Amino acid sequence: MKKQVDLITAAKGGLLDRRLFLKKGLVFSVAALSSESLKAESARFPWMQTPGEALSNYGQPSEHERDVIRWTMANSMADGNGVSWTPLHKMEGTITPNGLHFERHHNGVPQIDPDKHQLLIHGAVDRPLIFDMDALLRYPMTSRFTFIECGGNSNAGWRDKPIQTAAGYFHGMASCSEWTGIPLGLLLAEAKVKGRAKWIIAEGADASMMNISIPLQKIQDDCILALYQNGERIRPENGYPLRLIVPGWEGVLNVKWLRRLHVTNRPSMTRNETAKYTELLPSGKARQFSFIMEAKSLITSPSCGQSLEKPGLYQISGLAWSGRGKIAKVEVSADDGETWAEAELQQPILSKCFTRFRIPWQWDQKPTVLKSRAIDETGYIQPERAELLAERSKHGYFHYNAIVSWGVSEQGEIRHVYSE
Amino acid sequence: MKKQVDLITAAKGGLLDRRLFLKKGLVFSVAALSSESLKAESARFPWMQTPGEALSNYGQPSEHERDVIRWTMANSMADGNGVSWTPLHKMEGTITPNGLHFERHHNGVPQIDPDKHQLLIHGAVDRPLIFDMDALLRYPMTSRFTFIECGGNSNAGWRDKPIQTAAGYFHGMASCSEWTGIPLGLLLAEAKVKGRAKWIIAEGADASMMNISIPLQKIQDDCILALYQNGERIRPENGYPLRLIVPGWEGVLNVKWLRRLHVTNRPSMTRNETAKYTELLPSGKARQFSFIMEAKSLITSPSCGQSLEKPGLYQISGLAWSGRGKIAKVEVSADDGETWAEAELQQPILSKCFTRFRIPWQWDQKPTVLKSRAIDETGYIQPERAELLAERSKHGYFHYNAIVSWGVSEQGEIRHVYSE
Repeated sequence: MKKQVDLITAAKGGLLDRRLFLKKGLVFSVAALSSESLKAESARFPWMQTPGEALSNYGQPSEHERDVIRWTMANSMADGNGVSWTPLHKMEGTITPNGLHFERHHNGVPQIDPDKHQLLIHGAVDRPLIFDMDALLRYPMTSRFTFIECGGNSNAGWRDKPIQTAAGYFHGMASCSEWTGIPLGLLLAEAKVKGRAKWIIAEGADASMMNISIPLQKIQDDCILALYQNGERIRPENGYPLRLIVPGWEGVLNVKWLRRLHVTNRPSMTRNETAKYTELLPSGKARQFSFIMEAKSLITSPSCGQSLEKPGLYQISGLAWSGRGKIAKVEVSADDGETWAEAELQQPILSKCFTRFRIPWQWDQKPTVLKSRAIDETGYIQPERAELLAERSKHGYFHYNAIVSWGVSEQGEIRHVYSE
Repeated sequence: MKKQVDLITAAKGGLLDRRLFLKKGLVFSVAALSSESLKAESARFPWMQTPGEALSNYGQPSEHERDVIRWTMANSMADGNGVSWTPLHKMEGTITPNGLHFERHHNGVPQIDPDKHQLLIHGAVDRPLIFDMDALLRYPMTSRFTFIECGGNSNAGWRDKPIQTAAGYFHGMASCSEWTGIPLGLLLAEAKVKGRAKWIIAEGADASMMNISIPLQKIQDDCILALYQNGERIRPENGYPLRLIVPGWEGVLNVKWLRRLHVTNRPSMTRNETAKYTELLPSGKARQFSFIMEAKSLITSPSCGQSLEKPGLYQISGLAWSGRGKIAKVEVSADDGETWAEAELQQPILSKCFTRFRIPWQWDQKPTVLKSRAIDETGYIQPERAELLAERSKHGYFHYNAIVSWGVSEQGEIRHVYSE
């Protein structure tokens, strides 16, 4: 490969200045045109010889992208209990298309008739209210881009040995959409919440009547009663016709098929906040109501199971997010954490939203370890795995957000490694 | 309805301060809970009695949203020639989901095998290049949110009588996505464009080999060779596997199924830039290469064919966009253009991207006319229909961007009107 511009080193292991690709005259990796390829080019393909398919009312992905799907895992012991992961390792940008948003269901996906669905707000309020969908659709709306991440995302990271699976099927219980709906504070003000109230118990209309307690203050701050996801009405598996959006907090709080908001002065202490989502710490104390999803990042390309064909220039690309606000910086290491270089962040950077990072990297065919670490606007730094384990011990199960390490072999094969 | 906060008038006809809905204590339109509705609420629905549907690899919209589709219109005289419209009047926020992005095809949707697809860059270059998809997928990428609008969008507006159709089926040859791909300037630099070159002729791999001329400068400024739309690979009807994205310029330039970029020193003067997309002006001169889509806006809710059930508070919601940059301001009138009030703009406001606007409105059951007008960051103001007609005359067909007027009857029915 002929160098035509200076490849400015940003860190060891081949990481280059993040603005490198803005320079002109960079020769990347293709061969110049040969007469043989010109000949191939001029051959007509079947799809250029006859008219193509007709217009469609609702489009679908190409059949050549059949492997870009949610990976599902159902619990055979309980009907309708399971999860599906977003294939982050096959995606680019920041938006998750609706068909690929991760799922976590406790009793399957209810097929709700919106004409019969109602939302009840009651409990410690002066004016209990019931809304049908027509009434809600007339209310003022707001939109925001935000991620939802399951509190149990990435929990294979607690295992003794690094799981060998695609990045999305390990970290893809996280997805990002533009959600549109009614600011919940507006409806609560209309219901006139009583002064002593501190919590809201949100309940879904699935067969398990999934419910969970959420501090009233958060609901009033920035929660949305969502009706639309990425421009269209929410799909059944994401809560049609109504979903509670709790920006930056764990996924279980974002109750799907929302039917009831019970205003109260204490949490309900149901299964999902006692048997689950509560963890014993090394000190003997329990961690409960650990709502906020702390900053996290991972390299999606190249990533586990993928391979580098040959030495040369690559673009490392990944996602970072924080439940506390904006991503301030993402650093990447190509020498197992010895040195770090700052990645380019896709604009605009939004609060509690996926942020795409990218950095050029020249691979010299030596084995190495790639890592990324997110730093959010509060100054929080994504921890190394050893740090996280020291803090949370073997009882850890939820909220795994350690730095992810991808080992690169001499042959260019990429595996998940624990690098400490 | 009991007023609990001051309804600050922003303009005549019932337009209220755009920040009104941020205030607490606003009573909107619902009834307080009755014992009868409580009873209805406690009845169990079928979907709460048995486990729901299983997890899915790729989700689909609810069957209750079957009418939220692209409206298609095929040309019976030419196979695969036609358009489909995005149902903007059924949507919220700014993103168009991939299944609903508008289509304009000249010879149908080719079913391309990505393993056989290649991109050729040739003509006035020192190093002609051919790329296969594997090579392109390794290149550095960038993402941006941008709209694509057909130059012929809204052209029913030139008719003598206002067309009575849903807003999206009149103005919905405009859609907005997050596009991800390779900055084209990078590939052109690699091909070493010769100094005298001024144009690029882009050609698609459909059976019509649709081609069009684009100034080289624009390609180098901000065009993207897109591989991904809203996170996943582009769908067949939007150009799989490769689409040229020309931010802010007319849709026809955003060549789908891109197979060839011919660098040259003059435009090709093909059908799409002579017989089409060229218009005679009142002066006798012709308007040609009118690439930029000027600022436009329309109220999507309430809009033509919808109706207001009763007097009271409503949120007016709509979309604005400009091919020249950011939307600076959207003004709404509820008295046929006599007085105007500023709408709230959804954040973040991005350049050459859909911007959602919203403003509260109290309808007093009197007949009136609702309008919106966009002002972009260059100071350009969306024109009244009479102004546009004076400038472009009866030969106008493309680039119709006049203010859209919705007439509201005493019964709350909404019709498209020409208000001048």
